[in-house]
Amino acid sequence: MKKSLGAKTILYPTPVLLVGSYDHEGRANVMTAAWGGICCSEPPCVYVSLREATYTYGNLEARQAFTISVPSTDLVVEADYCGIASGRDEDKVARAGLTPVRSALVDAPYIAECPLVLECRLVQTITLGLHTQFIGEVLDVKADDDVLDARNHLSIERIRPLVYAPPNKAYYAVGQRLGTRGIGLQIRDGQDGA
Amino acid sequence: MKKSLGAKTILYPTPVLLVGSYDHEGRANVMTAAWGGICCSEPPCVYVSLREATYTYGNLEARQAFTISVPSTDLVVEADYCGIASGRDEDKVARAGLTPVRSALVDAPYIAECPLVLECRLVQTITLGLHTQFIGEVLDVKADDDVLDARNHLSIERIRPLVYAPPNKAYYAVGQRLGTRGIGLQIRDGQDGA
Repeated sequence: MKKSLGAKTILYPTPVLLVGSYDHEGRANVMTAAWGGICCSEPPCVYVSLREATYTYGNLEARQAFTISVPSTDLVVEADYCGIASGRDEDKVARAGLTPVRSALVDAPYIAECPLVLECRLVQTITLGLHTQFIGEVLDVKADDDVLDARNHLSIERIRPLVYAPPNKAYYAVGQRLGTRGIGLQIRDGQDGA
Repeated sequence: MKKSLGAKTILYPTPVLLVGSYDHEGRANVMTAAWGGICCSEPPCVYVSLREATYTYGNLEARQAFTISVPSTDLVVEADYCGIASGRDEDKVARAGLTPVRSALVDAPYIAECPLVLECRLVQTITLGLHTQFIGEVLDVKADDDVLDARNHLSIERIRPLVYAPPNKAYYAVGQRLGTRGIGLQIRDGQDGA
């Protein structure tokens, strides 16, 4: 028997994404978002949902571009800080000890310390309510050498991204590997109890 | 130095969501999606991105409703199967040994075996390219008794949701707890190296 919890934004897992932008003075800003993800494979598109009150919201509207930097577990303190402080009040990139790098593809900075970054051109803005969805086309994905294997394939074990659990407001690491796509086919082979 | 990997849909972590719908005959169908997440807090909205070729796409257009059921790690085989098989060819809910439950709020079924479910009314459809984003307003969240604590709070440790790593096509569990929102404030207190 399931218990009703009401109309809420509860979903597991959500990511921890550092959204990079420039403000009107050209100062790099970064904001942590958990309302974000992949929304189209071709063209490759990702989104972040932002409240109009955020500094990043105005930056994205003005610059029509943003980056997403994926922090490792060892950046959990910095990532959390960039979700609490505002770029209106301080240079929070510097305060958090992070290094902005100007993208050569879009008018936005990414974070050097993050092992994986996406450079995005704003393609659609969808007003939903408290949040507006900013959809970006991914122009390039860049990764640190040490999270790539010999065949240039990414490894989630090396990236060690953060997982956020919204109602609990808690950060987690990615855990044990459980299998790869295709393990479900054992159901057809009758090897599963189902 | 970061290496360019090209324009791709790479982002960590993505969720593993079972999208529930009814087809034109009223048969319950479920499709596994990793392109999904939270996109607005008020009204609470979530989305799933679907290719037009999927059976679920037509179901959602016709019924204007869907559910999201969050599978536990012990349902990884079933979840994977529901991302491979098509409801056009078989009753995959039954084949996977899952139990559909008719929602009292929306015209869609959820999965009894999943500890957390969201019942959604379709509010916007955004065409992006290969994928179309289906945005749903969450009318209710329901959870199994055994994933709630004494104060009716959800625990991600009890839900044990799956994490998907898209380029590696691999499933993971959620790992170690690293801290809660607010740990970043130590940067202001000068306790961080930054």
